[in-house]
Amino acid sequence: MQQQPNAATRGNEAVAALREALGADIVSLPAEFGGRQFADWSGTPSADPIALIRPRTTEEVATALRICHQFRQPVVTQGGMTGHAGGACVLGGEVALSVERMSGVIDIDPVSATLTVFAGTPLQVVQEAADHAGFMFALDLGARGSCTIGGNIATNAGGNRVIRYGMMRDQVLDVEAVLADGSVIGGERKMIKNNTGYDLRNLLTGSEGTLGVITRAVLRLRAKPRAISTAWCGMPDYAAVTTLLGRAQERLPAGVSAFEVMWPSYCDFVRERLPELRVPLGSDHAYYVLLETCGADPERQSAAFEDFLADMLDDGVIADAAIAQSDADAAAFWAIRDAPAEYPRLIPGRISFDISFAVAQAGDAAQRCDERLRARWPQATILVYGHLGDGNLHVVAQEPGWTDADIDDVKRVVYELTGEMGGSVSAEHGIGEEKLGVLGLSRSPAELAAMKAIKLALDPHNILNPGKVIAM
Amino acid sequence: MQQQPNAATRGNEAVAALREALGADIVSLPAEFGGRQFADWSGTPSADPIALIRPRTTEEVATALRICHQFRQPVVTQGGMTGHAGGACVLGGEVALSVERMSGVIDIDPVSATLTVFAGTPLQVVQEAADHAGFMFALDLGARGSCTIGGNIATNAGGNRVIRYGMMRDQVLDVEAVLADGSVIGGERKMIKNNTGYDLRNLLTGSEGTLGVITRAVLRLRAKPRAISTAWCGMPDYAAVTTLLGRAQERLPAGVSAFEVMWPSYCDFVRERLPELRVPLGSDHAYYVLLETCGADPERQSAAFEDFLADMLDDGVIADAAIAQSDADAAAFWAIRDAPAEYPRLIPGRISFDISFAVAQAGDAAQRCDERLRARWPQATILVYGHLGDGNLHVVAQEPGWTDADIDDVKRVVYELTGEMGGSVSAEHGIGEEKLGVLGLSRSPAELAAMKAIKLALDPHNILNPGKVIAM
Repeated sequence: MQQQPNAATRGNEAVAALREALGADIVSLPAEFGGRQFADWSGTPSADPIALIRPRTTEEVATALRICHQFRQPVVTQGGMTGHAGGACVLGGEVALSVERMSGVIDIDPVSATLTVFAGTPLQVVQEAADHAGFMFALDLGARGSCTIGGNIATNAGGNRVIRYGMMRDQVLDVEAVLADGSVIGGERKMIKNNTGYDLRNLLTGSEGTLGVITRAVLRLRAKPRAISTAWCGMPDYAAVTTLLGRAQERLPAGVSAFEVMWPSYCDFVRERLPELRVPLGSDHAYYVLLETCGADPERQSAAFEDFLADMLDDGVIADAAIAQSDADAAAFWAIRDAPAEYPRLIPGRISFDISFAVAQAGDAAQRCDERLRARWPQATILVYGHLGDGNLHVVAQEPGWTDADIDDVKRVVYELTGEMGGSVSAEHGIGEEKLGVLGLSRSPAELAAMKAIKLALDPHNILNPGKVIAM
Repeated sequence: MQQQPNAATRGNEAVAALREALGADIVSLPAEFGGRQFADWSGTPSADPIALIRPRTTEEVATALRICHQFRQPVVTQGGMTGHAGGACVLGGEVALSVERMSGVIDIDPVSATLTVFAGTPLQVVQEAADHAGFMFALDLGARGSCTIGGNIATNAGGNRVIRYGMMRDQVLDVEAVLADGSVIGGERKMIKNNTGYDLRNLLTGSEGTLGVITRAVLRLRAKPRAISTAWCGMPDYAAVTTLLGRAQERLPAGVSAFEVMWPSYCDFVRERLPELRVPLGSDHAYYVLLETCGADPERQSAAFEDFLADMLDDGVIADAAIAQSDADAAAFWAIRDAPAEYPRLIPGRISFDISFAVAQAGDAAQRCDERLRARWPQATILVYGHLGDGNLHVVAQEPGWTDADIDDVKRVVYELTGEMGGSVSAEHGIGEEKLGVLGLSRSPAELAAMKAIKLALDPHNILNPGKVIAM
């Protein structure tokens, strides 16, 4: 039986081979990249990698992975480092592969409504290129300036427009990726319909760097909205919230492009801590809904939107509503929903949850979650809000002085409730390293076994982002 | 080394074990199911299975697969048998597993807009249940009365509304399936957002019975359209066709729900062979487009639709147009597009293709395909039409007296062209047994290797629908 070299020796050999094959410009050593940050936005601690690979081409990525495969050398792929689950952090012993040099729009095809792009391109660059070509790229999220398309695909990013346009996987027509053994799949297909065997594109999307390194993608462009109508609604109860959602989907000509629900504690927090944001309506409603529709026909849409809201007021579905009369009004409504950008300053040390339920259960889930947390930590700040049209709740909890054990307890309360109610422990942020331990609350042993079998089939030496997504 | 029993002996043992575990009502033998048809709509010849399993529950499916796994006994799953690629045909030596007894709607959740259903339920039953609950189930295709939801998922069915609502995979929130070893995954989740590990749902969707037996699904319901506007447009050239598509997506308030393009040969064929269908406009246009939008606001939509078409006429994008003034008009337009239902009578022995390209290339692809076929078979009937909004072309070719060798040649011409132009050899019908040999024209060796690895990981003895989708 052959003796296995230990990990450190193996790592040194792998780095030497990488450096020899790709050169010092592509493969740098700790002494050369000193000071660089390898942590993401989740707050998960990150080690330094044993080397940093910054390839310029898919071929260089393939060379790097072939060598890592050969030496059983773990690799963590890094994009914009804006993840919320520690999926791109270095656990120790990995080489980091950054796609930062593989950046740029390759092709815009206005007839096919597609945009082909390198994985390291920031989301905002894609949005701007699409806009310039007369289209919209539908994915949008707060980290747009820093996050990369590769990371958006690897995590199946969500955001505010999912209710209308879907998740990142719905924006992707093809993905080019380098698999663990250095083989390259996909990358240039612009077809919307393509039933040729297993759906590798969707398998890679959301796999968080554990099945392949995404190097390129063909993205789907959408017609640019010519009219946006926005309202802030005060709701009498949760039944009214879901009724409004259903009626809006049925009656608004362009459908619903955002349906953001805020619980009163959230609005009270904004009123108190961010007084510069003027929250419309009184503070006596049971829920607040930010409703948006975006379509093609400014005049007719505006009239239809006003008719709809008037009917909902008449029917008692909405208790009170403010319609944005200008872009500035709409921006002011959105500023309230975007208050979480101020959390790092206002609620340091908070614990954030990104969970989802059937829409019919989300109200009950939020209430139970709030009750269980308050029963145990009556002084805590607890905020609930979310993309309710998708059943996606964000829950934030914080109390100054919480110990690590308290934090674990808070997580246990929320995730166990999520599991009990058949919800998802990760709606849009992914599993990464942070939620590895709770994946089993949303996935059965048979599902975990199937995922492990797929992982081992495509990455038999478990070199791609080990310790993330699924415990092997 | 242990001696392997031969396939026939093994098959007898497997059937005996199945019959003992599940009983003669569930597992019937050839003498008992004599006369039953096992072929699908593709015309692929089908053998008889060595036994027919008709389970009533997921647990019975699991028992059956556990036994087949143990005995290395191949299994072909059968639904409504309406497939176009031979994916559900019996090649010889398999047991057939029919989901016909696992039929019915389990739950409609109007708040979450979901419908939970057993796999053997016909599509039309789901459509009617959704309609009765005030919703629409978005998938629609000609075989609706016979095809099953399980088959729709297993083949990732397409149809006429893909441009607006997506393929079957976009209608599915969760899939319950029994894997080769009898383990059961998924089946009850109603969440739209669920980023918990690998996307098993999308992997099963479109896997044509080779990765698991689908037993149940949670489907997504859509708001029922309250207004449908339809026009028949004569187009001057292909650039005008793609311009109309882009403008319609940009300017129609409810978007585009159908964009069906017919080449002149198609319309001439309909005029000549189906004179009872009155084709609107003259016969002097380069292309014909059936354009439909469906939305929420009858009056405003109708006005917007007329404004839009008037502008397109003014701009010269459309040469001439007829707007449906009634449901009967719209039905008459659709009857022209639905003429393929008459093919079995009118064009016996035809070869049908279901290929796709980038929208920008579909016109060129159709022209080259037509030219290459006509150059070689000048007398052949060649019809081209398709869901152009999705880049999906249907090509039909026939000449009385074609031999099997001619048919192989025709297929070679079309599929090689498809491969050359980076298209897909199967847009919506799947690979099945029929296109196994041409999958490599649309998928690279690395992709085929990845698919094989996944297949072996989930079905190590290759018992699930062997000889379909991918050559092992």
